[in-house]
Amino acid sequence: MAQDPWQNRWEQPYTDLALEATAALRGASGGEVPGVRMEESQAPGLRIARVEVFSPEGEAALGKAQGRYITLEAPGLRDRDPELQEAVRAALTRELAGLLDLRPETSVLVVGLGNAQATPDALGPRTVRRILVTRHLKAYMPPGQEGTLRPVAAIAPGVLGTTGLETGEVVRGVVQHMRPDRVVVIDALAARSIGRLGTTIQMADTGIQPGSGLGNARLGLTRETLGIPVVAIGVPTVVHAATVAFDTLDLLAREMKGKSPFFDLMAQFGPEERRRLIQEVLRPEVGDLVVTPKEIDDLIDAMARLLARALNDLLHTTPEAQALLRYAGG
Amino acid sequence: MAQDPWQNRWEQPYTDLALEATAALRGASGGEVPGVRMEESQAPGLRIARVEVFSPEGEAALGKAQGRYITLEAPGLRDRDPELQEAVRAALTRELAGLLDLRPETSVLVVGLGNAQATPDALGPRTVRRILVTRHLKAYMPPGQEGTLRPVAAIAPGVLGTTGLETGEVVRGVVQHMRPDRVVVIDALAARSIGRLGTTIQMADTGIQPGSGLGNARLGLTRETLGIPVVAIGVPTVVHAATVAFDTLDLLAREMKGKSPFFDLMAQFGPEERRRLIQEVLRPEVGDLVVTPKEIDDLIDAMARLLARALNDLLHTTPEAQALLRYAGG
Amino acid sequence: MAQDPWQNRWEQPYTDLALEATAALRGASGGEVPGVRMEESQAPGLRIARVEVFSPEGEAALGKAQGRYITLEAPGLRDRDPELQEAVRAALTRELAGLLDLRPETSVLVVGLGNAQATPDALGPRTVRRILVTRHLKAYMPPGQEGTLRPVAAIAPGVLGTTGLETGEVVRGVVQHMRPDRVVVIDALAARSIGRLGTTIQMADTGIQPGSGLGNARLGLTRETLGIPVVAIGVPTVVHAATVAFDTLDLLAREMKGKSPFFDLMAQFGPEERRRLIQEVLRPEVGDLVVTPKEIDDLIDAMARLLARALNDLLHTTPEAQALLRYAGG
Amino acid sequence: MAQDPWQNRWEQPYTDLALEATAALRGASGGEVPGVRMEESQAPGLRIARVEVFSPEGEAALGKAQGRYITLEAPGLRDRDPELQEAVRAALTRELAGLLDLRPETSVLVVGLGNAQATPDALGPRTVRRILVTRHLKAYMPPGQEGTLRPVAAIAPGVLGTTGLETGEVVRGVVQHMRPDRVVVIDALAARSIGRLGTTIQMADTGIQPGSGLGNARLGLTRETLGIPVVAIGVPTVVHAATVAFDTLDLLAREMKGKSPFFDLMAQFGPEERRRLIQEVLRPEVGDLVVTPKEIDDLIDAMARLLARALNDLLHTTPEAQALLRYAGG
Repeated sequence: MAQDPWQNRWEQPYTDLALEATAALRGASGGEVPGVRMEESQAPGLRIARVEVFSPEGEAALGKAQGRYITLEAPGLRDRDPELQEAVRAALTRELAGLLDLRPETSVLVVGLGNAQATPDALGPRTVRRILVTRHLKAYMPPGQEGTLRPVAAIAPGVLGTTGLETGEVVRGVVQHMRPDRVVVIDALAARSIGRLGTTIQMADTGIQPGSGLGNARLGLTRETLGIPVVAIGVPTVVHAATVAFDTLDLLAREMKGKSPFFDLMAQFGPEERRRLIQEVLRPEVGDLVVTPKEIDDLIDAMARLLARALNDLLHTTPEAQALLRYAGG
Repeated sequence: MAQDPWQNRWEQPYTDLALEATAALRGASGGEVPGVRMEESQAPGLRIARVEVFSPEGEAALGKAQGRYITLEAPGLRDRDPELQEAVRAALTRELAGLLDLRPETSVLVVGLGNAQATPDALGPRTVRRILVTRHLKAYMPPGQEGTLRPVAAIAPGVLGTTGLETGEVVRGVVQHMRPDRVVVIDALAARSIGRLGTTIQMADTGIQPGSGLGNARLGLTRETLGIPVVAIGVPTVVHAATVAFDTLDLLAREMKGKSPFFDLMAQFGPEERRRLIQEVLRPEVGDLVVTPKEIDDLIDAMARLLARALNDLLHTTPEAQALLRYAGG
Repeated sequence: MAQDPWQNRWEQPYTDLALEATAALRGASGGEVPGVRMEESQAPGLRIARVEVFSPEGEAALGKAQGRYITLEAPGLRDRDPELQEAVRAALTRELAGLLDLRPETSVLVVGLGNAQATPDALGPRTVRRILVTRHLKAYMPPGQEGTLRPVAAIAPGVLGTTGLETGEVVRGVVQHMRPDRVVVIDALAARSIGRLGTTIQMADTGIQPGSGLGNARLGLTRETLGIPVVAIGVPTVVHAATVAFDTLDLLAREMKGKSPFFDLMAQFGPEERRRLIQEVLRPEVGDLVVTPKEIDDLIDAMARLLARALNDLLHTTPEAQALLRYAGG
Repeated sequence: MAQDPWQNRWEQPYTDLALEATAALRGASGGEVPGVRMEESQAPGLRIARVEVFSPEGEAALGKAQGRYITLEAPGLRDRDPELQEAVRAALTRELAGLLDLRPETSVLVVGLGNAQATPDALGPRTVRRILVTRHLKAYMPPGQEGTLRPVAAIAPGVLGTTGLETGEVVRGVVQHMRPDRVVVIDALAARSIGRLGTTIQMADTGIQPGSGLGNARLGLTRETLGIPVVAIGVPTVVHAATVAFDTLDLLAREMKGKSPFFDLMAQFGPEERRRLIQEVLRPEVGDLVVTPKEIDDLIDAMARLLARALNDLLHTTPEAQALLRYAGG
């Protein structure tokens, strides 16, 4: 088997991105993964990958719940190109429309996971701050026009470390009261690759599984736990320092292939062993250090604006709602 | 009857402060109010008034639920005197201890009402941000020491205008999950008198009634709605512009007594009529304008620090908790 | 002379707004003020007043330096009507163009006075944060295109109370280094009337005189002190509590005219005496309290966005600069 | 030559920390560096290194201006141990006292470099926000007590990218006006090693050289440019992603010594060549990415509090100043 095992780093047990999990499996098996469909499309500066897990077999192979996973990759987002931002926003709105399946009267709760006081983890709270909420305005609409505003609510439940409360339970409590038709959850993710920071957006109709993301959503936010469709939007904003090292060695290995007995030696370890080796070597100086780009304040703000604009466009389509949006936009 | 009717402005239907409601009734009736007990004590720079409403008769007379209301008045707080702040903090801790009746294992949920993005309404959120939460730490304590940390959680549920959700229902959802033994609710209040802004703190074991405060807690947060004791802490941070005018005329009236047929004329109106007259005159220029002092950022921060210190002192008394407090205080 | 002296409150020694000073004098003298020209124009929802002080006589009468003062009044700004905001922005851009007299290569320093940590005083700092600065980009432009970006710099020098430095001297130091062709100074003002809060914008080509505004610009920022044209933009964001009372009595007086010997008595005092009387009466409870609307966070943000948009539109007109603006706007 | 060349990575042309530069040279030459003195002392959890560059020879060897460099290393700061923080604060105050040589009337300007809107670069601005400024209070002191407050001013001049102005020139303008006796400059640094982030503090009486730090102080802030003693305080808050990779390979190399022909091969390159190789390999995915820990908000706040406390303790020793500090500390 001639395959370079260094490319298999995504075999590792967990990644937030279904795209990466699928790519890893394909690499390992050299072809299709049973129970998983994947297709890709391209636009200038933008790649869209759609992964569908459609059988228990696929679920087991991928370690991902059955459902649809859509990933937008736009490396140019880092340069803040306004035209690319607009293209990404349009793609987001369109793809979310497909996942959410909204009718005019469908009510939506937008949940921003994460810690508003920790910049790299503040994507959720900063996005919901920009969502136009309308659920409470019904009472103020002229008779006969109550239907012109879709009921939208938004909440940032905080994180376990600052509230002492499981995020999942807070959200469940709100859902039980509000009884929305759909939930949209926004979270900052830990990436496997520094190249993804602020350039990749994943949407999934599977909600958020326990333990994933940064937001400490240890109790899942899924159709099973909440009883309604849950769409998750995740953006990688941090990466393990060990991953940076891992990436480097990986890249070095490709360069050094055949030239380096060291890398040939390393290649004989499985990827998890290699990762463990690196983490051991990096400890204690690096330890479990998780890092984020120096420009994180700008990255979070730009991404929160982008997500909020896409969601507001999707949720508020009537002339009445559009007028409110303009007011709020100041 | 020689009484100056201008002093009866507190007859008006609603004030957040039981102290003011009682003072008004006493003024009007010239003596005791049936079903209401009131006592006052003094310390340098600090006045403590305790009002107890103990019968349906008192409840009806005062328009206040049965229970205990404690008001601290310290005009010097505006000058940020650190010794006075310390005296107020100690008084707060002591009075809250009386209202909350805590045993070592009593769990507490602290709720910060209000809008974190609107400075005069941010007292609740900024206070809870400084509360040491410990409920989630139990699992990390060494065996046999789980009892050394009182379980404390804290949440800022936001306001209807930015979440689309009734605050009361969000809190109810959290309480149903967490099942705390006590709830402490912190809110910014609208004062009747500009002299109270940032200088008066009211505590009550009645919780928060619908419609009171700034925080849109339209569904009450009370023992009745939550099923457990609820202690409310409120601090006046805003005042109606009309109140400023009202205060001025009131003060002028005292100066002008007997000298001014105008004020003698005005005195023949009831206080509500007078208030309505003033509001009419002030409209449209002033309208429903509510104002806050120019130094509101400092005022809110100082008060949030004060309340959080008093609560942390009260809730976290073991050496283990005190050590955590020092860490957090950094 | 049957004139109601209560309307003469603007005779008082100082107001930041030339419009009010002129109106007061006209009211008092019943006609034209020598050395002062005033004209007004209207658009839907928007009134523009142009006052020109063109002789030492006018300067003495008005207590205002010779120069042009333009005031935009748009009460509807308080309701955040986006169409009105757009109309105000266009008017601002146009009027500032007239005052600044820019050629393509004219360099501009934008100075945001005030304390970024005190919301009602943060208009200047929050506006400059949104100004596109380009002065340092010249070096990065392709050869032959250096002229496509007007050199713009922006600074928020802080206030005496938090820096220990006279704002005027800091600005003077920067001007001496940068040698801009124009300075634009933005400041929050104390209004005479609560109706003006967040609804009035004054521009003047006289710069800022010592002692005016909130920003402690005790050393003037004027053509005399800086050696170049200085245009000031001021927006009332706070008002003395005593003014609210004054307004009320003033309004009451009109209603009560002829009916109230009290007001007839009061009318015999001069306006300064009346103001002193009211301040005495209000002390100690109100003292020198200065207030701001409860919605001050929103008001400052909306106004900072509005001013920055108007300035960016005016300063950055080339396609290259417009492209940068779109990037920054993200 | 038995020496492991991987340890010589500090031979590279530039590091902000004199300690690292000296250690590298010593490693390379196997002993003393002419013109450079270095001594170290230890306290529990805290290591203090004093480097003195005392001749042109030392200056050339180290690439550092003549002067004293003091480095505090306290890895435990990352865990927020309050006792260690207190020990570090005391050491900071003591060492700064030695560098600043203050008499009671010596006036001081504290300059916080960096961008207040970019968390990892906000150390300077957030520190100065906590400095008690007193220079403007002289006029308010009772006669005969003017000398009880040392004149202290503080400014955060912003960064070139958001002001369009060279920081160095803004500071120079302020110094020319204020004419302080000493300047203290605070800046966030780029570290060479992730282990230093938030755990190392360097002080130097050489000021800040062009090109160093994050704060874009391209014009030096030194005794030469400002005409008075300048003490710089720097704290590493970011690190190049390539450095993380470099560190990893370095650590791996030590483990693999003798076992890996690859590393033996690499060792034959000079350190700059190795660094260039790694950067080439990492590009384009990593590029010039600079990273910071996920907990950067907490790190900056804790460090700003620590520095401000040390400086306030040093600058404000009279009872009058201590009383003001307590007021401000609220």
